[in-house]
Amino acid sequence: MLGHLLKPEYEELIRKKDWESLRIAFEEVDPADIAEILEDLPAADSGVIFRILPRDSAGVAFEYLPLDQQTEIVQTLGSEQLKNVLNEMAPDDRTRLFEELPAEVTNRALEQLSAEELKVARELLGYAENSAGRHMTPEYHALKPGMTAREALDSVRKHGKGRETLNSLYILDEKRVLLGDLRLAELVMAEPDALVRDLPTRALVAIPATAQKDEIISTFEKYDRVALPVTDSRGAMVGIITADDVLDVAEEQATEDIQKMGGMEALDAPYMEIGAWEMLRKRGGWLSVLLVGEMLTTTAMTHFEGAIERAVVLALFVPLIISSGGNSGSQATSIIIRALAVREIDVKDWWRVLVRELRSGTMLGLLLGTIGIVRILAWEGLHTTGVIHTSYGEHYLLVALTVGISLMGVVLFGSVTGSMLPFLLRRLGFDPATASAPFVATLVDVTGIIIYFTVATMLLGSTLLAP
Amino acid sequence: MLGHLLKPEYEELIRKKDWESLRIAFEEVDPADIAEILEDLPAADSGVIFRILPRDSAGVAFEYLPLDQQTEIVQTLGSEQLKNVLNEMAPDDRTRLFEELPAEVTNRALEQLSAEELKVARELLGYAENSAGRHMTPEYHALKPGMTAREALDSVRKHGKGRETLNSLYILDEKRVLLGDLRLAELVMAEPDALVRDLPTRALVAIPATAQKDEIISTFEKYDRVALPVTDSRGAMVGIITADDVLDVAEEQATEDIQKMGGMEALDAPYMEIGAWEMLRKRGGWLSVLLVGEMLTTTAMTHFEGAIERAVVLALFVPLIISSGGNSGSQATSIIIRALAVREIDVKDWWRVLVRELRSGTMLGLLLGTIGIVRILAWEGLHTTGVIHTSYGEHYLLVALTVGISLMGVVLFGSVTGSMLPFLLRRLGFDPATASAPFVATLVDVTGIIIYFTVATMLLGSTLLAP
Repeated sequence: MLGHLLKPEYEELIRKKDWESLRIAFEEVDPADIAEILEDLPAADSGVIFRILPRDSAGVAFEYLPLDQQTEIVQTLGSEQLKNVLNEMAPDDRTRLFEELPAEVTNRALEQLSAEELKVARELLGYAENSAGRHMTPEYHALKPGMTAREALDSVRKHGKGRETLNSLYILDEKRVLLGDLRLAELVMAEPDALVRDLPTRALVAIPATAQKDEIISTFEKYDRVALPVTDSRGAMVGIITADDVLDVAEEQATEDIQKMGGMEALDAPYMEIGAWEMLRKRGGWLSVLLVGEMLTTTAMTHFEGAIERAVVLALFVPLIISSGGNSGSQATSIIIRALAVREIDVKDWWRVLVRELRSGTMLGLLLGTIGIVRILAWEGLHTTGVIHTSYGEHYLLVALTVGISLMGVVLFGSVTGSMLPFLLRRLGFDPATASAPFVATLVDVTGIIIYFTVATMLLGSTLLAP
Repeated sequence: MLGHLLKPEYEELIRKKDWESLRIAFEEVDPADIAEILEDLPAADSGVIFRILPRDSAGVAFEYLPLDQQTEIVQTLGSEQLKNVLNEMAPDDRTRLFEELPAEVTNRALEQLSAEELKVARELLGYAENSAGRHMTPEYHALKPGMTAREALDSVRKHGKGRETLNSLYILDEKRVLLGDLRLAELVMAEPDALVRDLPTRALVAIPATAQKDEIISTFEKYDRVALPVTDSRGAMVGIITADDVLDVAEEQATEDIQKMGGMEALDAPYMEIGAWEMLRKRGGWLSVLLVGEMLTTTAMTHFEGAIERAVVLALFVPLIISSGGNSGSQATSIIIRALAVREIDVKDWWRVLVRELRSGTMLGLLLGTIGIVRILAWEGLHTTGVIHTSYGEHYLLVALTVGISLMGVVLFGSVTGSMLPFLLRRLGFDPATASAPFVATLVDVTGIIIYFTVATMLLGSTLLAP
């Protein structure tokens, strides 16, 4: 897809600073592919290339670059190039760039915009971060309900140039209240004298400008449209969001959730571009919190130190038991966080989820408890026949039962805790994805130790643990 | 957005079996919303409603239903309704339905298709599961390069009805080889006598029919298009994929990855709809495997049983140490799995990732080791002043050092293992997402125990652990 040359050949031209050949070669290349080549270059070289690119390509290629590289390049461009690039960018992408730039660069950049573009940028900046208002573009084409199809098509021909999408046209009344969503194809296929208001429009679906990411994504998933209008609180249309932007938003959101669920802060930038200190901050914070939480296991173990002294064999199974609880908790919490994120379930479903997890947890607990008991009996069997030398002692049957019952208990407890925690967090106003696997595991570890030694005290109190 | 009535009012009408009022009420409702109402109904009721819906709405609403409900409903419909519904469905959605149906129902369903529709369904079924061929629809509009803009617009007017999208038109030569991708808007804005081949087309980007999910998603993300053509190995166009379908694919993919990363098989269906046995199978399988893996911790602990007997204090820190290793591994593996999934990094980057994780792991290890040492010293300080009663014994300084160094070691080991495992799995042909947090934690647990007791033996061999 890289036009006529291969990527190394472009890089060779850049290395040789053969700008003229490069300019000619780039004429045939899609701006997305130009951006891919630029991504691997230092900002200074990219700056030069922006000067030789045709004006349109430059603007479009710039939009494809990652935000942090845009930020760097903006600071190397002359006023004229900067103006070209900024005026070519889609308003929503420009807004995101402005948010990233240092304040003095933003000011310089805003000065380069035409009066009209400036108004658009300011408008978009008025909406809360991550809201539909930030992701929309005001570049849509509006029709009046009283126009004929011919007049409507003429207006598209006349004013349509440069609009982000003309696939959907929007019928607005004189107060810009949204009346209908008309496909350009319907207009093309209509009788020229038919009135726009009489053409077959689709059912009216709009996204409120205040809608958050997950609402935007779920509305697009539900209605399967390639673009949706954005309206303000009065129902007036303020912009459109296109499905390709929503795809970016959805992928970003999934990345954030996965990173949070891995027990860290969302990185908010590509892995390879994050500095060492930033990485330490994003990961070290949660790791330290979890370590402090995990210190409770030491406290719990200290409480049972006497039991361990009397029966060291009990200590051998501690990692096995607590990690099984952590694993079942990790499963439950991953399922529920994702189901909440894609709106498959809602906070009010917590009760039904609890019932299901009590059932799953019991079944999984029985399964793992049985495997645990079989393992210990098999080991002891191998010992008796002399295959292995270590033994769990004369009370191995009671030890096996202790491990089996504890496994059942911690797996059930893990499933229930892991599934309920996301609901609790959302209820308290936090992101459910904060209920990461490590967080749940830490909670379950402490409880697992208590469950295990309590069962042990009950079953072995008169034998192995007799004072 | 639910037309004139509220959802409970529709449900009331259904309860009263007032089909006539329902029919009138549904005329105003978007099929996506009808589908939402139907989702909560038993299959028998939905069947009746399909009979009263206008033919077009029925087909569209059916498409919005989850696959498992479609499967149920198909089996309750009469031949006539079945025919209507199937003929209205987009070919790609129909293909997915056919894959789910029991064989005898598929045959009955295929019989209902018109000869042309049948050909389409069979064609789509020829591509591998999850490939672009399965997600494409062959409903696109093709133009010949020698047509004038006027002729091209006429052809859209005449043959465009019912195409999934007319936003993009495709210029094909006589062998159906793709020459250009033309926006309908460009055609509308063109001079009527201009030749199609001379109109400004976009750079040609196509998805091979064999492309897998992640390639489809990344191509859409890169080029920001609302639809892309699908071509076979000869470059001939076989269908299109639209961005709204890709959004569904991307969300599905993220859900699968998140569930796998939680340490289980992907559920492949909404949480609330999975039966008890299915859930046991999807979660119990991996839990059992992990339990068996975790048994190695018991084996490792058994190896150090003598050390624990001599110094029970060592056992107290085992959960703390192994879980810190698991947590750092979980972070690293989540980051890398996601970065691979969104193609931010590639398998060949493993070396650069290793270098970064050696650095991050060392920094995080130093941080956690320091916190661990401070905790033990602080505890001992509180003991000395009489605030708490337990003590880590006379060698507490060496114990603190043992814990600190071990924490450093396991955190570093966790980061490196967690980050390298996804590369290894992909190299071996597995899905990197299988390197779930629990899987990494289990690996690191065993190593953590060995690291800890080895450090203890070295530091405490002549004091606490002296025979």
